[in-house]
Amino acid sequence: MTREVTVVEVALRDGSHAVKHQYTKEQVAEIVKGLDGANIPYIEVSHGDGVGGSSIQYGYSKVYDIDLIRIAKENATHSKIACLLLPGVGTVEDLKQAHAAGAEMVRVATHCTEADVSKQHIKFAKEELHMEVVGFLMMSHMVSPKKLLEQARLMESYGADVVYVTDSAGALLPDGVYERVHNLVINMGIPIGFHAHNNLGLAMANTISAYQAGASFLDGSARALGAGAGNTQTEVMIAVLDKMGVKTGVDLYKMMDVAEDIMSPMMTTPQIIDRNSITLGYAGVYSSFNLHAKRAAEQFGLDARDLLVECGKRKTVGGQEDIIFDVAAEMAHKNNS
Amino acid sequence: MTREVTVVEVALRDGSHAVKHQYTKEQVAEIVKGLDGANIPYIEVSHGDGVGGSSIQYGYSKVYDIDLIRIAKENATHSKIACLLLPGVGTVEDLKQAHAAGAEMVRVATHCTEADVSKQHIKFAKEELHMEVVGFLMMSHMVSPKKLLEQARLMESYGADVVYVTDSAGALLPDGVYERVHNLVINMGIPIGFHAHNNLGLAMANTISAYQAGASFLDGSARALGAGAGNTQTEVMIAVLDKMGVKTGVDLYKMMDVAEDIMSPMMTTPQIIDRNSITLGYAGVYSSFNLHAKRAAEQFGLDARDLLVECGKRKTVGGQEDIIFDVAAEMAHKNNS
Repeated sequence: MTREVTVVEVALRDGSHAVKHQYTKEQVAEIVKGLDGANIPYIEVSHGDGVGGSSIQYGYSKVYDIDLIRIAKENATHSKIACLLLPGVGTVEDLKQAHAAGAEMVRVATHCTEADVSKQHIKFAKEELHMEVVGFLMMSHMVSPKKLLEQARLMESYGADVVYVTDSAGALLPDGVYERVHNLVINMGIPIGFHAHNNLGLAMANTISAYQAGASFLDGSARALGAGAGNTQTEVMIAVLDKMGVKTGVDLYKMMDVAEDIMSPMMTTPQIIDRNSITLGYAGVYSSFNLHAKRAAEQFGLDARDLLVECGKRKTVGGQEDIIFDVAAEMAHKNNS
Repeated sequence: MTREVTVVEVALRDGSHAVKHQYTKEQVAEIVKGLDGANIPYIEVSHGDGVGGSSIQYGYSKVYDIDLIRIAKENATHSKIACLLLPGVGTVEDLKQAHAAGAEMVRVATHCTEADVSKQHIKFAKEELHMEVVGFLMMSHMVSPKKLLEQARLMESYGADVVYVTDSAGALLPDGVYERVHNLVINMGIPIGFHAHNNLGLAMANTISAYQAGASFLDGSARALGAGAGNTQTEVMIAVLDKMGVKTGVDLYKMMDVAEDIMSPMMTTPQIIDRNSITLGYAGVYSSFNLHAKRAAEQFGLDARDLLVECGKRKTVGGQEDIIFDVAAEMAHKNNS
């Protein structure tokens, strides 16, 4: 069982969360040179919440991400530059600019039940800009493999070349990854990818599971840099895949050096698994729930963790933060009755 | 497939490496109270290299480990105190003292091909001190499942109640863990345990694999504190096992709080996977090889990583550090010819 896999490096996008979107032009140039030298095929560069994410809600970037894409492109001799776009955060106009600046791939990301909102952006990227287009189904743990396939097929129908199972909360166990990825692999005609988070210490386990289920695109982040507990650590993933006999084309030693000599000194905090990360992964909820849950728990005399777990069970989704207070009131009532 | 597992917390032993054996009496008391409150069944307390390890070779402990065992015992209401003993480092005399101070379990650790050196210590612990005795087979990746079984049977014949597969270099992939643990489980009449290191980001994956293979003792370390890249992070492991429906008896929230509120503030460096850790896990060699390899690589114009990988292939074991220079000379000769 040896098959080529394509690695997408996300330290300059998901990792942007971990540096509060404060990458400088010089840092991006240096990181891209290193990754390009290590033969990474795709480097994703964007605000953590995608192109156009720089805002009061999501945090302002130090450098406008279109400029960062341009710098990345200038410093890559063969690595391709990718960008992320969340419909509703980024616009078709942002995408045009990202493409003009050098992005050859766009990953259009939606909640796992809302693939339909990606239609316009995927079609535009494919038909007008002739980009490589990836559909990125976030919080994939929240739906069954069957439902996920339905959503993935929508993205394929709009023109996506690749569809990703994205474990945004790091909530999936290896078996859950396997069944989701495998169901897409056997039922769809396009390559399937996987993006992990390490909330439950399972980023590497889940990445292996995705590969074994047939995924051919795998995300990694140098030094694991990413939102929350971070992503699959690229240089470790290359070592593991190499030990498994899986070819990536990435130079292991050079990738290890990029992580240690370039990325590590830029990091302001190490990528660890703290109480917060575990809670989100265990409950399977959005990180945006956290603050609301703490407030509601205090008001109703609950442990915020119980509240988050209950929200997870009810499959509460982003944007529904008000529901947290209703759930808290209900739980408090039940406890007192 | 739900079965009870017994958790052994090693932050006060393997984690001692990570704080350079500088635990204070107050810290040990506080950690033990927390772990006891979270219902951890066994807490291992010793110098990182076992009782009697405090020395110029292995680093001096701030507080003599027999005293730490006594303090741990005084602060535990139901958790049992375990200690580690490496024959050659610790003696039967050390063991007697550890037992007198309150250790009810001893884990006698040897290289995976040298179980015979544990005979005297296992027999003494079992027959004279009536302790619970665990045989701890280190660097288990270096031998086949068949050879490991042979060694495990020796430990059982001396009186061990439990035998561990110990992945000291974090070099095993999940399949390798499965086949080793499973071969012991199906061929032996005593419980089997597993101890992971996270050099390749696989501590949690390998722990799950060990459980699935039938292991009933699993090691964890609060906040992952341990030698090198650290161990399986206890509080995360409890969350994962809970999600899998596996009962441990440990209180998840309390364990998360011990890790975050007690352990984390005591840590001098976060537990991350750096270049060094990856190299040791990838090559599958002892950490003591590292410095020698760097010197030899410099002398012979090699990349130290290639040298370590070659030593791993040749299954060079601890104490054979001189061989590293011979291997380096040979490699340099081959490169130049």
